[in-house]
Amino acid sequence: MLKEPVRSVVDVSTGGMSGNTGRYEKRLSELAGLYQDADAHRAMTERLNDPVVYAVEDFRPGNQAGDLIYGVTRMGPGRIGQEFFLTRGHIHAKADRPEIYYGQQGNGLMQLESPQGETRIVEIGPQTICYVPPYWIHRSINIGDDDLVMVFAYPSDSGQDYGIIAASNGMRHRVMADDAGGWKLVENEDYRPRSGETAAAIMKQHA
Amino acid sequence: MLKEPVRSVVDVSTGGMSGNTGRYEKRLSELAGLYQDADAHRAMTERLNDPVVYAVEDFRPGNQAGDLIYGVTRMGPGRIGQEFFLTRGHIHAKADRPEIYYGQQGNGLMQLESPQGETRIVEIGPQTICYVPPYWIHRSINIGDDDLVMVFAYPSDSGQDYGIIAASNGMRHRVMADDAGGWKLVENEDYRPRSGETAAAIMKQHA
Repeated sequence: MLKEPVRSVVDVSTGGMSGNTGRYEKRLSELAGLYQDADAHRAMTERLNDPVVYAVEDFRPGNQAGDLIYGVTRMGPGRIGQEFFLTRGHIHAKADRPEIYYGQQGNGLMQLESPQGETRIVEIGPQTICYVPPYWIHRSINIGDDDLVMVFAYPSDSGQDYGIIAASNGMRHRVMADDAGGWKLVENEDYRPRSGETAAAIMKQHA
Repeated sequence: MLKEPVRSVVDVSTGGMSGNTGRYEKRLSELAGLYQDADAHRAMTERLNDPVVYAVEDFRPGNQAGDLIYGVTRMGPGRIGQEFFLTRGHIHAKADRPEIYYGQQGNGLMQLESPQGETRIVEIGPQTICYVPPYWIHRSINIGDDDLVMVFAYPSDSGQDYGIIAASNGMRHRVMADDAGGWKLVENEDYRPRSGETAAAIMKQHA
């Protein structure tokens, strides 16, 4: 069946996008368990009345293989202890699907983790594209003082899988603020490495 | 096999992109046959010593199904008679593959044509996304006085098919400058409509 072309105008200042088919928000309470300092997370959630951490507006043409979903994400600035506002992180349910992010405003990081537990960090500022290859778990982090706004696109049959992170008690590393106004990687002490069999099974997974 | 993440910085003023795996250019002589005024095309090609009409820098992770190619395209401003600088136009070799364009600078149009010969025009300025759905022939046109710069992404197994346009002697309509500094659509008198059987065959084509 033939679909109609779509025109979407991105409002970088609000993270909005015309022509979208949907919108969703994540609030701070939904990020429970991600932060090392659970008390600080709980206190901030109460003090700020469970604020929105990030919002997404996207266009979904359907979920046929070969088609593309695109949208805009806006994440506010914020700190929980020495950690930053971030997304839970996911691998695609079809693990061999990639994703592209394109920074529009603010300063962020993409934290990536391979099935074998290797970490990569890609710094994202305005006009920076981050290519997330197939099979990499990924999470975005707002390390700046302003909203982090990114345009993204991914195959429409990708899906999202959050269980792989839950099974390993988060990602292998935490991004923490350092004393110089920047960031550093520290080991996540709760991290449970995936077995070689688990990693191999993920790498074998196809559409 | 696991691929590494990629960071690409887009230079909007030049249409360049770091981290690219390739670059190509199209010169005016290569657009022979597209314009109504063949004499004007030939004269301008000679007078300007066959200028570059557009250049593309892209990142190609490979051509596996489910992966994504992305890049930047820059098209100069120019007129051939009452027509503008433009791309030849293509449908994807796997016709059910879509494409996303994201305007960064300048003023352009995406001219789209369905297998059945319907025309759609999407105006693209800065921060405008154009979603080209599966099965639509598409061409970009620079209707402004400056470079038209767009970021794009499409499935890595899409391929490009230029034969469908050659077979119909171009697209059904031509975009022409009007007397008010804008543009208008006129019928392409050389256009040869595709048969219902041809259109149906395109719509049935899958990966």
